[in-house]
Amino acid sequence: MTDTVLSSPTRETVIGFDRPFVVIGERINPTGRKLLAEEMKQGDFSRVESDALAQVAAGAQMLDVNAGIPLADEPAILAQTVQLVQSLVDVPLSIDSSIVEALEAGLSVYRGKALVNSVTGEDEQMERVLPLVARHGAAVVAITNDETGISTDPDVRFEVAKKIVNRAADHGIPYSDIVVDPLVMPIGAMGTAGRQVFHLVRRLRTELQVNTTCGASNVSFGLPNRPAINGAFLAMAIGAGMTSAITNPLEPEITRSIMAADVLAGHDQDCAAWIKANRVPAAEGEGRRRSNRRRPVGT
Amino acid sequence: MTDTVLSSPTRETVIGFDRPFVVIGERINPTGRKLLAEEMKQGDFSRVESDALAQVAAGAQMLDVNAGIPLADEPAILAQTVQLVQSLVDVPLSIDSSIVEALEAGLSVYRGKALVNSVTGEDEQMERVLPLVARHGAAVVAITNDETGISTDPDVRFEVAKKIVNRAADHGIPYSDIVVDPLVMPIGAMGTAGRQVFHLVRRLRTELQVNTTCGASNVSFGLPNRPAINGAFLAMAIGAGMTSAITNPLEPEITRSIMAADVLAGHDQDCAAWIKANRVPAAEGEGRRRSNRRRPVGT
Repeated sequence: MTDTVLSSPTRETVIGFDRPFVVIGERINPTGRKLLAEEMKQGDFSRVESDALAQVAAGAQMLDVNAGIPLADEPAILAQTVQLVQSLVDVPLSIDSSIVEALEAGLSVYRGKALVNSVTGEDEQMERVLPLVARHGAAVVAITNDETGISTDPDVRFEVAKKIVNRAADHGIPYSDIVVDPLVMPIGAMGTAGRQVFHLVRRLRTELQVNTTCGASNVSFGLPNRPAINGAFLAMAIGAGMTSAITNPLEPEITRSIMAADVLAGHDQDCAAWIKANRVPAAEGEGRRRSNRRRPVGT
Repeated sequence: MTDTVLSSPTRETVIGFDRPFVVIGERINPTGRKLLAEEMKQGDFSRVESDALAQVAAGAQMLDVNAGIPLADEPAILAQTVQLVQSLVDVPLSIDSSIVEALEAGLSVYRGKALVNSVTGEDEQMERVLPLVARHGAAVVAITNDETGISTDPDVRFEVAKKIVNRAADHGIPYSDIVVDPLVMPIGAMGTAGRQVFHLVRRLRTELQVNTTCGASNVSFGLPNRPAINGAFLAMAIGAGMTSAITNPLEPEITRSIMAADVLAGHDQDCAAWIKANRVPAAEGEGRRRSNRRRPVGT
């Protein structure tokens, strides 16, 4: 029954075992988005603004914010982006970078309790990121790889997660503030990728009692009709006990599948959210419908 | 690694742990279809014919055949329907009735190894149906209720399944010829209905090592946008280890979800079926595309 509480100054989002699945909007990320990268580098944040508003309107309970632009001042841009997004929307943020200085810059301007994305099981990285997480009272995404890379054996990835949870405890970070990413491989390259994730999520939930998240879209890399694969994957992951994902809330097939899976997992009391979302006239469109899904919890 | 082999004179369908999910087409059933009931009673089987052909074209690997019409000669009509459907399509059939005489009439004309749908855990019913199944060398769907009704405790339903498997063994029917239906309740009436089924399917698979099936559509009874709920339910059920379902292959959202879940469960080698189905030009429609999905295994 683990709850991971994230917050902005005016809203809490809780990732938890018996709660509706938390969608962390993935769009504010220049990786693979050349135009967005160029604009952010030039100081044009108009697309960041529209992505932030659209994702929250579509039901995202959190937003991931990444400013990984080659040859740019990532710490400064990430801090600026975090401030901008917090001025526009009230959902808590996931501050996303592989550069510790950028995480630090983002955290230093963040108001509330952020999710730091991410720490790996590499010793040097843990010793730099975990003190930062502890100092800011944040939560953190733990990625299940270490110095040896990503193991293709999910039970080895489980041990990496366990190592991070233990190390975090040494820094005073409780397991309830660790959200483990079991790492999702493309199913087209590795036929066992789905089963691995489901197996690992079950172990993480029952044995380590931690919440989980993932970059869901990776599973369908290289395949046709990716939203259908992503939607089924998320439903199956929810069935296995996954509690959040970094994904695209603007994709109707994905949000519909998550909402249906929440109903079936017993996380949508009296099917109220489902009935409400599916009763609104079709003309309103999926995004608008989903915007009614979950109200701010308030603080 | 349990395989349940069903057959027609020219084709085998195998329900099994590591195989693509088996869709048993649900359409040939006059329950709740007033017009079909009236036609069948009058000897007009044109709708049965079109339903049989359409479901197989849409990818059903088996068809359920039911002739439960009030105040009609169900044994005679069921036998006639079985013969007709076998003359039209080559997939094995599930012979569906709550009346033992009708099951007997259907089995007596069936060519191949049929699936008898169904036997419950009621002593009297087991003693009538199981000898029939054994005599015809058929397989049988075991429904997890008994004289006391349907328990709301899935572990009680597990015990009913175990009782049926044991009793069947007394009649010489191996556990590999029992396909257990964990019973799917409407999620709108019972919020735990989904989790119960997933839990029970896991137990049935790991402890009794039996294949499983269900009437999937029941889960969404009374809710809006039922195909989306049914599709997510089936993906989650496949994730939990379910191996077949009696459902509607003419519903694109359901078949797409099943195919995607097969990919993610590692049952679609090299994602070949998915890639093939999703490469054909969109103009061909979902049903037609799915018709290419699985080739007859041959006998």
